[in-house]
Amino acid sequence: MGDPAGIGPEITQKAWTALKDTPASFFVIGDPNLYGDIAEILSRPEETDQVFARRLPVLPLALAEAASPGKPATANAAATISAIEQAVAFTLSGHAGGVVTNPISKAVLKSSGFAHPGHTEFVAALTATVDQVGPRGPVMMLAGADLRVALVTIHLPLRAAIDHLTTEAIFHTAQVTATALQTDFGIENPRLAIAGLNPHAGEDGHLGREEIEIVAPAVAALRDMGLIAAGPLPPDVMFHAEARANYDAAICLYHDQGLIPVKTLDFWGGVNVTLGLPIVRTSPDHGTGFDIAGSGSARPDSLINAIRMAHDMAARRAA
Amino acid sequence: MGDPAGIGPEITQKAWTALKDTPASFFVIGDPNLYGDIAEILSRPEETDQVFARRLPVLPLALAEAASPGKPATANAAATISAIEQAVAFTLSGHAGGVVTNPISKAVLKSSGFAHPGHTEFVAALTATVDQVGPRGPVMMLAGADLRVALVTIHLPLRAAIDHLTTEAIFHTAQVTATALQTDFGIENPRLAIAGLNPHAGEDGHLGREEIEIVAPAVAALRDMGLIAAGPLPPDVMFHAEARANYDAAICLYHDQGLIPVKTLDFWGGVNVTLGLPIVRTSPDHGTGFDIAGSGSARPDSLINAIRMAHDMAARRAA
Repeated sequence: MGDPAGIGPEITQKAWTALKDTPASFFVIGDPNLYGDIAEILSRPEETDQVFARRLPVLPLALAEAASPGKPATANAAATISAIEQAVAFTLSGHAGGVVTNPISKAVLKSSGFAHPGHTEFVAALTATVDQVGPRGPVMMLAGADLRVALVTIHLPLRAAIDHLTTEAIFHTAQVTATALQTDFGIENPRLAIAGLNPHAGEDGHLGREEIEIVAPAVAALRDMGLIAAGPLPPDVMFHAEARANYDAAICLYHDQGLIPVKTLDFWGGVNVTLGLPIVRTSPDHGTGFDIAGSGSARPDSLINAIRMAHDMAARRAA
Repeated sequence: MGDPAGIGPEITQKAWTALKDTPASFFVIGDPNLYGDIAEILSRPEETDQVFARRLPVLPLALAEAASPGKPATANAAATISAIEQAVAFTLSGHAGGVVTNPISKAVLKSSGFAHPGHTEFVAALTATVDQVGPRGPVMMLAGADLRVALVTIHLPLRAAIDHLTTEAIFHTAQVTATALQTDFGIENPRLAIAGLNPHAGEDGHLGREEIEIVAPAVAALRDMGLIAAGPLPPDVMFHAEARANYDAAICLYHDQGLIPVKTLDFWGGVNVTLGLPIVRTSPDHGTGFDIAGSGSARPDSLINAIRMAHDMAARRAA
């Protein structure tokens, strides 16, 4: 569901219209009133595939008060959180192939006592005791049409992000990413491109020493494991088409180093994927859109791609 | 000329072939032996326009030793420096409309006592005492097909770049850029987009305070001057096509914030322009290419665009 006052309900309806004739079936956990005439109420998730081609399957979840587009209500925070918890539980129990989360507002949830920085950490906490194969994340990946980036640091001030960089964090992010590329994306021998931090990747130490002291040892350790890893690469010359052809995912050291190229190249279609979890989880890469909620103008591209990607990932895990 | 052992001679020949039937005429200051059969030696710059459609006009400059592609020679550093000095002098004296510099190697020049961090600062020093209209740079702009970025900090380690950010530096970079957009690019009411530093432009201080304390006051001061300035903008959502349509230049706070989007979008064609000088100066945005020099594979796109841009800028200044 995501925040019921955001654009989630609108893009969900649009995504159903786009996907109803495809194998990427899904059900929504949310208030059926949010989805208009196209909603059909399920009593169990298993009914999804009978319904999906005709109607948007909705597993009902009551809101504390009716949602008003653009006006988030703290009273509905509990339902928003419950939708996430149920989606994770249904996935863990095998009733769904994966979780796709619509945007939430951290400010709204925080005011009702939600203690996690965001979806990614919450889903990781909900699955922390579940066994999984491979190294544990969460690692945040943004996947655009032609570029995947995984982030070593995420929502930190830039100065703090630099302070938090360690060889271990880079190595771990890369290792989780490589495993996910194999398991979830079907890439047998994933090629990683590890970004440097400084202009020209430090120019042999003349423009910063983090490449020599922090990044290069991580690249060496990845290679010692038998992984294909290039770097530290000069950040400005690793994202054009010819450079992108050389790798399957870029490991980026800070938020904008990865998100600037992804969003510059594919602003509407990027998908946020959480790697290194025991379950599949994807999300659109935009926010709640409170400013345009209810206007009918929200674009569903990212949610559509997030659902398709979750479907493909789940199929690969099941295979 | 640039470094005679780099790709400069090759891309210069290719640029002449591409431009010989256009009004963007130029002469080279360099060793005529570098330019093969197509070179014609000038005795004075004024002969350029008689020669240009037939041959590549070369104002001869002797090298200390014959250039060997891919093998830079310290002995030729003096000639490389002299070519720049002559180009600046001919432009100041009105014998040329502007300076286009081919790539140099700072390492090679440094070993012969060259004390400037690069071309930009050297050209600024050579013109420091010359009167000019408008605020003085140098400000480095990278101009791709569809995006211009001006940099507040350039070749500094990322951590040092953050330390060097000041309201004054942002304001000054933006002011020089706005003036250049008017004078050199023919944009009467330039629109500037000022980037934030942190993820989501700091999210109201939750992800860093530089936007509030350093960037926003610069934006306010620019607006107080009557300039059109938006910001601080979240860096990851300011470079896609729809966002770019809203501004004429982005003011970026650190090297890769500006260069990642420019080079991702237009890797081969970007031009390095120095703003805020009494003369026009442009340059290709790549290096000497010692690794491919002599192979015939160097792409002249950036040099061609640099020459065209210098020609257009000079025409606007003359108008």
